[in-house]
Amino acid sequence: MNRQQLTELLEKLQRGEIDIDAALQKLRDLPFEDIGIAQLDHHRELRQGLPEVIFGEGKSTRQLQTIIDRMQHKQLNILVTRLSAEKAAELSIPFPDAGYDQEARTLILQHQPVRMTGRGKILIVCAGTSDIPVAREAAVTARFFGNEVEEINDIGVAGLHRLLARTDSLHDAAVIIVVAGMEGALPSVVGGLVAVPVIAVPTSIGYGAAFGGIAALLGMLNSCAGGVTVVNIDNGFGAAFAATRINRSG
Amino acid sequence: MNRQQLTELLEKLQRGEIDIDAALQKLRDLPFEDIGIAQLDHHRELRQGLPEVIFGEGKSTRQLQTIIDRMQHKQLNILVTRLSAEKAAELSIPFPDAGYDQEARTLILQHQPVRMTGRGKILIVCAGTSDIPVAREAAVTARFFGNEVEEINDIGVAGLHRLLARTDSLHDAAVIIVVAGMEGALPSVVGGLVAVPVIAVPTSIGYGAAFGGIAALLGMLNSCAGGVTVVNIDNGFGAAFAATRINRSG
Amino acid sequence: MNRQQLTELLEKLQRGEIDIDAALQKLRDLPFEDIGIAQLDHHRELRQGLPEVIFGEGKSTRQLQTIIDRMQHKQLNILVTRLSAEKAAELSIPFPDAGYDQEARTLILQHQPVRMTGRGKILIVCAGTSDIPVAREAAVTARFFGNEVEEINDIGVAGLHRLLARTDSLHDAAVIIVVAGMEGALPSVVGGLVAVPVIAVPTSIGYGAAFGGIAALLGMLNSCAGGVTVVNIDNGFGAAFAATRINRSG
Amino acid sequence: MNRQQLTELLEKLQRGEIDIDAALQKLRDLPFEDIGIAQLDHHRELRQGLPEVIFGEGKSTRQLQTIIDRMQHKQLNILVTRLSAEKAAELSIPFPDAGYDQEARTLILQHQPVRMTGRGKILIVCAGTSDIPVAREAAVTARFFGNEVEEINDIGVAGLHRLLARTDSLHDAAVIIVVAGMEGALPSVVGGLVAVPVIAVPTSIGYGAAFGGIAALLGMLNSCAGGVTVVNIDNGFGAAFAATRINRSG
Amino acid sequence: MNRQQLTELLEKLQRGEIDIDAALQKLRDLPFEDIGIAQLDHHRELRQGLPEVIFGEGKSTRQLQTIIDRMQHKQLNILVTRLSAEKAAELSIPFPDAGYDQEARTLILQHQPVRMTGRGKILIVCAGTSDIPVAREAAVTARFFGNEVEEINDIGVAGLHRLLARTDSLHDAAVIIVVAGMEGALPSVVGGLVAVPVIAVPTSIGYGAAFGGIAALLGMLNSCAGGVTVVNIDNGFGAAFAATRINRSG
Amino acid sequence: MNRQQLTELLEKLQRGEIDIDAALQKLRDLPFEDIGIAQLDHHRELRQGLPEVIFGEGKSTRQLQTIIDRMQHKQLNILVTRLSAEKAAELSIPFPDAGYDQEARTLILQHQPVRMTGRGKILIVCAGTSDIPVAREAAVTARFFGNEVEEINDIGVAGLHRLLARTDSLHDAAVIIVVAGMEGALPSVVGGLVAVPVIAVPTSIGYGAAFGGIAALLGMLNSCAGGVTVVNIDNGFGAAFAATRINRSG
Amino acid sequence: MNRQQLTELLEKLQRGEIDIDAALQKLRDLPFEDIGIAQLDHHRELRQGLPEVIFGEGKSTRQLQTIIDRMQHKQLNILVTRLSAEKAAELSIPFPDAGYDQEARTLILQHQPVRMTGRGKILIVCAGTSDIPVAREAAVTARFFGNEVEEINDIGVAGLHRLLARTDSLHDAAVIIVVAGMEGALPSVVGGLVAVPVIAVPTSIGYGAAFGGIAALLGMLNSCAGGVTVVNIDNGFGAAFAATRINRSG
Amino acid sequence: MNRQQLTELLEKLQRGEIDIDAALQKLRDLPFEDIGIAQLDHHRELRQGLPEVIFGEGKSTRQLQTIIDRMQHKQLNILVTRLSAEKAAELSIPFPDAGYDQEARTLILQHQPVRMTGRGKILIVCAGTSDIPVAREAAVTARFFGNEVEEINDIGVAGLHRLLARTDSLHDAAVIIVVAGMEGALPSVVGGLVAVPVIAVPTSIGYGAAFGGIAALLGMLNSCAGGVTVVNIDNGFGAAFAATRINRSG
Repeated sequence: MNRQQLTELLEKLQRGEIDIDAALQKLRDLPFEDIGIAQLDHHRELRQGLPEVIFGEGKSTRQLQTIIDRMQHKQLNILVTRLSAEKAAELSIPFPDAGYDQEARTLILQHQPVRMTGRGKILIVCAGTSDIPVAREAAVTARFFGNEVEEINDIGVAGLHRLLARTDSLHDAAVIIVVAGMEGALPSVVGGLVAVPVIAVPTSIGYGAAFGGIAALLGMLNSCAGGVTVVNIDNGFGAAFAATRINRSG
Repeated sequence: MNRQQLTELLEKLQRGEIDIDAALQKLRDLPFEDIGIAQLDHHRELRQGLPEVIFGEGKSTRQLQTIIDRMQHKQLNILVTRLSAEKAAELSIPFPDAGYDQEARTLILQHQPVRMTGRGKILIVCAGTSDIPVAREAAVTARFFGNEVEEINDIGVAGLHRLLARTDSLHDAAVIIVVAGMEGALPSVVGGLVAVPVIAVPTSIGYGAAFGGIAALLGMLNSCAGGVTVVNIDNGFGAAFAATRINRSG
Repeated sequence: MNRQQLTELLEKLQRGEIDIDAALQKLRDLPFEDIGIAQLDHHRELRQGLPEVIFGEGKSTRQLQTIIDRMQHKQLNILVTRLSAEKAAELSIPFPDAGYDQEARTLILQHQPVRMTGRGKILIVCAGTSDIPVAREAAVTARFFGNEVEEINDIGVAGLHRLLARTDSLHDAAVIIVVAGMEGALPSVVGGLVAVPVIAVPTSIGYGAAFGGIAALLGMLNSCAGGVTVVNIDNGFGAAFAATRINRSG
Repeated sequence: MNRQQLTELLEKLQRGEIDIDAALQKLRDLPFEDIGIAQLDHHRELRQGLPEVIFGEGKSTRQLQTIIDRMQHKQLNILVTRLSAEKAAELSIPFPDAGYDQEARTLILQHQPVRMTGRGKILIVCAGTSDIPVAREAAVTARFFGNEVEEINDIGVAGLHRLLARTDSLHDAAVIIVVAGMEGALPSVVGGLVAVPVIAVPTSIGYGAAFGGIAALLGMLNSCAGGVTVVNIDNGFGAAFAATRINRSG
Repeated sequence: MNRQQLTELLEKLQRGEIDIDAALQKLRDLPFEDIGIAQLDHHRELRQGLPEVIFGEGKSTRQLQTIIDRMQHKQLNILVTRLSAEKAAELSIPFPDAGYDQEARTLILQHQPVRMTGRGKILIVCAGTSDIPVAREAAVTARFFGNEVEEINDIGVAGLHRLLARTDSLHDAAVIIVVAGMEGALPSVVGGLVAVPVIAVPTSIGYGAAFGGIAALLGMLNSCAGGVTVVNIDNGFGAAFAATRINRSG
Repeated sequence: MNRQQLTELLEKLQRGEIDIDAALQKLRDLPFEDIGIAQLDHHRELRQGLPEVIFGEGKSTRQLQTIIDRMQHKQLNILVTRLSAEKAAELSIPFPDAGYDQEARTLILQHQPVRMTGRGKILIVCAGTSDIPVAREAAVTARFFGNEVEEINDIGVAGLHRLLARTDSLHDAAVIIVVAGMEGALPSVVGGLVAVPVIAVPTSIGYGAAFGGIAALLGMLNSCAGGVTVVNIDNGFGAAFAATRINRSG
Repeated sequence: MNRQQLTELLEKLQRGEIDIDAALQKLRDLPFEDIGIAQLDHHRELRQGLPEVIFGEGKSTRQLQTIIDRMQHKQLNILVTRLSAEKAAELSIPFPDAGYDQEARTLILQHQPVRMTGRGKILIVCAGTSDIPVAREAAVTARFFGNEVEEINDIGVAGLHRLLARTDSLHDAAVIIVVAGMEGALPSVVGGLVAVPVIAVPTSIGYGAAFGGIAALLGMLNSCAGGVTVVNIDNGFGAAFAATRINRSG
Repeated sequence: MNRQQLTELLEKLQRGEIDIDAALQKLRDLPFEDIGIAQLDHHRELRQGLPEVIFGEGKSTRQLQTIIDRMQHKQLNILVTRLSAEKAAELSIPFPDAGYDQEARTLILQHQPVRMTGRGKILIVCAGTSDIPVAREAAVTARFFGNEVEEINDIGVAGLHRLLARTDSLHDAAVIIVVAGMEGALPSVVGGLVAVPVIAVPTSIGYGAAFGGIAALLGMLNSCAGGVTVVNIDNGFGAAFAATRINRSG
């Protein structure tokens, strides 16, 4: 039952075409359907002008094309994440204007300018060069969501001077996303240097007892620094999404 | 080397009492000491009027008393977390004005009024009655850090109507802390209903394959809802700390 | 908004005291509140005459007494699970008619006869004598929910003749709950002998590499026999709950 | 020793061709052989008209062809699960009438109409589009076993309105199979909304700390909703098998 | 149905009191009951003169007393394993002749001399003094089962000379049980020195990353020496049981 | 220092060419070298006529050829395990008489007849058809080591009658190797039916929560049946090696 | 066979009292016994003047007293680690001169002055106050083994200035032991600042996803800084032992 | 701010071109930049003549070429680790003088002779032939860092004589690196035989319950021998780096 149908029901009641019991009967089943409508409305309002995001992994090129086609009708910006270079190449045929970022493995179809909505700058730092793809996914996503973004790479804790040389950037950010694999110690050090929210992203970088990111994940969850929260392994997108919410709130 | 000492060093150089090489020699070792000072300054400024926090677990009553004694001189508010009722009773003798919250297991010594610094309200929801102690620790901490706090208990996902009945509160918050044990599904549902940052706190509540909070932790890290970040198991304090940073940023 | 309030809203609309836009506005927020009501209604209907269940673990005697007091007003039967003998003794003072089962660690307050609602018999078999407490919890719960129950103990797979001697009982049941610790192999063997649903309950019985029930849990999840589903470690209550739904469905 | 042989033995005894001791001697070894027979009889009766199922994974095309050939003689319907597209193509040469479902990865050879034996409808819901293959395997299997099946896809808990819009279907089912990866929270929400048995199937969908389905599996085992039982990761077939038993029992 | 009943059934058939169909009907259910009987016979023969064993852990003193009482009627020797000193003291009142071994935590009631049935000597070596209780349980059990036993303690691999000094004993044994905690390396070294079967028993001795015996267990399962098989953590009894079977076979 | 050199040393001492101190000095370093010799002697005696075994996995074809070449000089039989079909094909050029078993993935070069040394028969049973490769490796190895071997396949616990129909074979064996994946329950059932040593081999067969053989491994380690010992996952060779030792001992 | 016995054997050969064959026969079994001797000699030489160490955990007071009694005869210094205050109190009666360190849980009986043998200073830093007991065990052990030791506490990475203020001490050490719980990041930072060997000791300090030291252990094993090696969780003794070897080598 | 800039600042102050406040202001931000400088200086001094190391895994050939190009300018020796044969072949075009070691998977560009800086010999022993690649990486690295290196292969604990025959080498080393997969027992045995530092490297060699090196890692962490420290799985480079620090210290 959509708004239209709800209006008709109430009009019928007003016109006396149905009585209160009948209306109640209809409305008894309404909540769930109405919630659907309400949620949609709410979300539509909320997301006004926001780009759509499609998780590309595990979807065939055909499925992706179908979904993008439907979304295009709304003329919204579209971000596809976790997209392999092969699929990106295939999608470039029906969507020649789409821009693919090989490092971030993201595809963007931009139909309108990105509306800058963040209060401050989101700083994305990563510990090693191998962590860059995850950091890039976060950066692309954060920019796509209307945030100013700064990126600093390769400032792991084993060479503190590299990190300490960038304190200006650290103190300048509204939110910091810290991407690190191996022992995942960087968020603790960053969290101790700044006073803004820090989102830690463990990466699956490392070998042996890194266990595909578990070591970094545990390190970050047990951070001795306050103000650090954590997202899933390699989840650059999720970190940028959360950072966007933080950067908009208030 | 503090600011005073640094000033004196430079004055000596200016007066020609030492030459540049000697000054350089002194300054060569300065950075680390200066950092100490700089950090302290920075932190002091940052924390101006902020209460001090002591992690009570694993410290003896005597150690705690010593630490609190030193801190009292600064006339700052003091929060002790993870404090057992036994130790709290012992500490009530030297510190008769301290207030102990049995559920949150926190002790507060308040020497000055809490300065309200948060932009919005922090909402703390918890899934089951057994999760309340962790939620309470978060609530006590968040209030102590100058935030307005609202608490809603026992709205687990197996009884959706309880959660859905509180959408007003959900939409009214600047940050939401979601505390849940067992399967830890509540943050996903909450994250899908709101547009503000959601901090998920897994609790060690549950039995069998809950594995002391691992099930909830994994559930939250894999949340299908965007904007959810996670802290350590049972870490109500950490969630409130991060929420405070979010609520202040900007 | 309850049914009463909803009726009044619709009457106001019918009487022209409010217009459709105002009603829509009110109803826009209704779903969540209505859901609350709807769920309650739905649940009330569903649970008509059904006993209430309280998870006793982690609740203080005072909390339990408060909850039971409130429930008593509805004159419903009450089951408390995972209740220690100490708390049961304390609760026997305010509730002298409550019956405590030391093995199952359950307390029952019965205000009306149990309505038998199950279609067939629920058979509960357990592999070893140490698994009996979990099996008992399942048996007490299943009977409390209105099922006929048969219990067979100590028929582990290392002595097949004990199991095979009870095939009559196996073929006679509508649902079978199989409780086993250690390697948890019994559900596979039972599942291969019968054609009815089998619910497997791993127990934390065992030592060393039993890892508190993980070995049994994994064994059951990997059962080579069809028709076997699994609940959490030591979750006799959950198995009986699921068996009750199966025994009623249709 | 089959029924025929057993009859002959008893006839010999009746005719006095052997004495009781000799018969006893033969029967002493009978049980195990008889069990074979008895099981077969019992199973044959049980499975009368039931299709045969072959687990396709890890079997070569030649092995599969041999097994199917033997089964064809009985003119029974045959279901092959976990069959790759490559092997399916190869099998289509000797068995041109076989129908392959690419999504479910199942092959069906139907020699007689499926006998509908279920009491009610089995509803299969899945949380995300990536979970669809597992849900499809469950759907194909359940239909093959004579059940009416309804499928609903992509109603994960992060968008509650999608789920709540389908409450009619939820309340209409005799058994519900819930397929979900990532945090596996959907069964808890569904279990709280309905009163029928819910079988949860964790999928290996997800990345990072999803650990190939462990997060979803633990989430489901720890479900705070009653009446939820769990099968192995990605085990759509097993869920359908158990649902069939439930849908027939009584 | 026991032998007696089976004889009567066949006599009735012989006498024409029942026909073949009725007999078949009865025999249709026979296998399982017969198996019960057959197994019992088989086992009785097998265990002739063998002592009974009761797993003491998790059984109350009263339960133990009841079980022992019943067993005493058969005048068999009885071994109780994993028995705490407290329960042993309580059982010494009804069974004053019982002998308790505090280190092995075993209780023995001997009604007849142990019949020596092993072909050779079982050697039990343990790596450290802390592993001795598990080794003692194995030694007590092996002797109780009629084997000659030799025990060597504290010959861990970090002091090879202690082990190498005992090669005579190593080469003299028919079966060797190796008990070790921590890294569990001793079975690999022993397995490389001898040509007889080696049963490895990991113990829960160690701390930190010993993880309650997992390190030793994995070490033993991955032994680079041939002929090593493994039992559960701390399972001295199981090792002795298996060694007894090996020492008797042939 | 070999026997020759040792003899010479002693002769020198006897002839007075060196004094005791010098001999002692030489012998001081002797132990380790002597051990080498002693071990070699011991092993040579032990292995007289025994085939050599090469673990093929992780070795290049060239490395394998070199090793086999050297071994050929001794005219001993040679067994290569874990050898891929590709490498086997390459090795068939220099070693045209070598026999490759595709299922067991073993290659045998036989230069002399296998000497039968086992006391009894080794029975190898496996639970499912997918476990056959591991069972085959065990069978090939056991025969190569001079044991009579019987193989029974596909008698998993979900169809007990298949197992019970083979009790003759079970009771006829001197040692039983039980190969099973998934829940690994078969060794428990077999161990309860027989009185001979049972070696359990978990396989990596299964999916989802089978975790590459962990479920089966844990199931076997926690077997409620006595006399069961366990080897590493998929280690058919190791089981056969241990069974050979058992079958020879005494 | 000790040196004396070996000398006698050689003298007999020299005197012609035995022939070479007889000597060879004796010597054939010598290696292992000789190794015993050789090892003992070697060790004696090696350990000349070194204190003896007893692992106190899991040993009864009586066992400890017996062992210490025997060791006292050699007049060597004795260190008991992991000794509870209770046992220490009991041991103070027979050994009134023994010194107990409550924090390190060590007991020392000193019969001769500690011989300083280390080349440089061992620096022991720990991340938090809760890690101090493990650091103390390392410090007591290192001093006992003849090393100069410096201790710095509470310089975790979340407050970098505390660490950086101590660079003088860091650069002054020959070996650094870094003790840390929680995320275990300190060794990475220290390893990046210095050029000497760093031994990392994870502690079981932390809660939730610290998993009793696993998070710290994994963090340290995956350290992005070179030159860091790791010992077992809480193994302060082991770190000091390894540091002593490093500090002496060369 | 480098030394030059710092000197200029101080000269300006000396010349009165800036006042103390301005200098303080500049110096307030100095520490972090100075640390950069200081670290660089310190490191430059430290690394004087030391080769540069590049972790090759996860870097593209182009990235590697760029990095090597920049490093070449300094005329330092360069070591690339974890480099596949494919990338090595591609890099041989721009860098024809580079030497690739296929087993160690290392590439070396040597512009000046290696300066031997180690005090003693580093001995690298490995347990099995499959562990050789990791041992080779350690050997190549250690030689590249200026150490004398000896390698011994295939002396696993299951054939002790092979190890004991090499005691001369063991006692001759300044540091020993022990590389072992499977149960990882070799470091315990070696650690018990020598008095020098032992660095244990677990390898991912093994199958089944070796779990990609976890078994060996746990075995080594729980080593009963003193003086053993551990690095990450397969981390031959890290072991050589740590051994170099040990071999230089003092």
